[in-house]
Amino acid sequence: MAAATKIIRSVSQMRSWRRQCLVENQSVGFVPTMGALHMGHCHLVKSSLAENDKTVVSIFVNPSQFAPHEDLDAYPRTLDRDWRMLKTMFPDKPVDAVYVPETSEMYPSGISLNVSEQKGAFVTVFGCSEGLEGTQRPAFFRGVATVVTKLLNVVLPDRVYFGQKDAQQCVVVKNLVKDLLIDTEVRILETFRESNGLAMSSRNAYLSPEVLDQAAIIYRGLCAGREVYATHVVSARSVSARSITDVVRNVYSNMPLSWEVEYVAVSHPDTLEDLEGVDFAVGGLVSTAVRVPRGDGGIARLIDNVPLAPQTHA
Amino acid sequence: MAAATKIIRSVSQMRSWRRQCLVENQSVGFVPTMGALHMGHCHLVKSSLAENDKTVVSIFVNPSQFAPHEDLDAYPRTLDRDWRMLKTMFPDKPVDAVYVPETSEMYPSGISLNVSEQKGAFVTVFGCSEGLEGTQRPAFFRGVATVVTKLLNVVLPDRVYFGQKDAQQCVVVKNLVKDLLIDTEVRILETFRESNGLAMSSRNAYLSPEVLDQAAIIYRGLCAGREVYATHVVSARSVSARSITDVVRNVYSNMPLSWEVEYVAVSHPDTLEDLEGVDFAVGGLVSTAVRVPRGDGGIARLIDNVPLAPQTHA
Repeated sequence: MAAATKIIRSVSQMRSWRRQCLVENQSVGFVPTMGALHMGHCHLVKSSLAENDKTVVSIFVNPSQFAPHEDLDAYPRTLDRDWRMLKTMFPDKPVDAVYVPETSEMYPSGISLNVSEQKGAFVTVFGCSEGLEGTQRPAFFRGVATVVTKLLNVVLPDRVYFGQKDAQQCVVVKNLVKDLLIDTEVRILETFRESNGLAMSSRNAYLSPEVLDQAAIIYRGLCAGREVYATHVVSARSVSARSITDVVRNVYSNMPLSWEVEYVAVSHPDTLEDLEGVDFAVGGLVSTAVRVPRGDGGIARLIDNVPLAPQTHA
Repeated sequence: MAAATKIIRSVSQMRSWRRQCLVENQSVGFVPTMGALHMGHCHLVKSSLAENDKTVVSIFVNPSQFAPHEDLDAYPRTLDRDWRMLKTMFPDKPVDAVYVPETSEMYPSGISLNVSEQKGAFVTVFGCSEGLEGTQRPAFFRGVATVVTKLLNVVLPDRVYFGQKDAQQCVVVKNLVKDLLIDTEVRILETFRESNGLAMSSRNAYLSPEVLDQAAIIYRGLCAGREVYATHVVSARSVSARSITDVVRNVYSNMPLSWEVEYVAVSHPDTLEDLEGVDFAVGGLVSTAVRVPRGDGGIARLIDNVPLAPQTHA
């Protein structure tokens, strides 16, 4: 019979579980989530289970990455469903621990959603937090960087797993781990998609079947942009960002009229600086955010991206 | 014969030394310094040696806590003298390791003194970084909090030692350790003083013997302020901050004319909020910064403080 999954709710329990792994010389993989688990998360968990002796999944809806007008209260909290999903998906080699921190332990100085009222220690990664998603959500990546730092300090994993879908989050986390000298390996895994190409996201749960279906256009546009890059690679050293975004936006001109494209950007893969041209030796990232109607009359922001892989010419 | 002190220059060496302590179940005490060691540092080292199996002293002049106009280049760098001092002071149970990090490893994304150009991950402790020293030095505690976080992530000490002389630094560090869930105990030790009462500081090396002598007035003033607190404790519940600062400033009116008192403040002991009155059940902190002439014609800022201990009435 497979071992049981342990549920851990306190920092001290988490630390003592971790200490035991150290004593037994067991490597630890860590998948931080905000719950509302989907197949994308399971893909990360599966990799962690394969690459480490032990795997911890955390479930914590992090208040500091929500602005006052955003969907913190509405964000899906489905702990029982998440728990069952992990059990069902990994019957033979189950997740070893599910860490469900208390907000009061994660934010001992308290946490206001109003950034100007926030007190205590926060981590900011300057240079890659301000553009793209950071334009619309100025304190978002400060919230992400802060909670990831806290979680890493408690779990002390050998490897931590993130999905490429949140490309900017991946860059922020890689930089904070590098700069703050946190002793862990950041593993970024490919975006997991619905059969129509839509990137998996907990926020997809907000969408009507019709919108879910139509939203395939988001990835289709990005792929068309990547195609421009691929066709230029054979004949040139670089391609203008404009020629890529034009093609993406051309696809997006077929979106329903009520949808709004916030940005289509071509960025440096490591710094996320806006690029004028993509050097094939360096590669890049094409990313977008689209506002679509929710089933309940609200608005959902869907984000997606495709990496432009660097090329080595013979 | 006593064991030799190991000098460690790289993150990977430091981590492997630390791992060995863990395997051998040896506790680790850590004294972070900017070098230019004096008896105040030795006092911290002595406590660490007494309270832990192993002790690490780091010597790193942290660029991110200097503003462009400050004394980064002039700051005394005396590694050979520091090394000899540690050898001489602790002949029987020597420090186990001296960690001398490279700037390039501590700041993998580079480090500009110009805050607006700084890229990468930084730690800010909101609420206790902005007043007092932070007024004159707006990015100072961001630099301190960032480098302390990095050092703690590399050394992973059981206990880390700071001197009460840098009272605001102590509050910033205590908060960052609490908020970022860093698994270490912060030990704050009493200020070590010259025989005339002047707080020991590496910057005292800038001063002429005459100024060193006259600078005794700084502590004398603070003690007079504490005396006001002590005499009121017996008869009242609180005392106005003004009655304390008036007495301190009255003493300081006898300073040489060329000296400049930047502030005399009475603050909450944990948050460092400016107080109007000191509640005897809570206590407080009287602190000051004074600008005095250096031997070379420049200016040195001397800081000092005395805690107002909370009282428990019978």
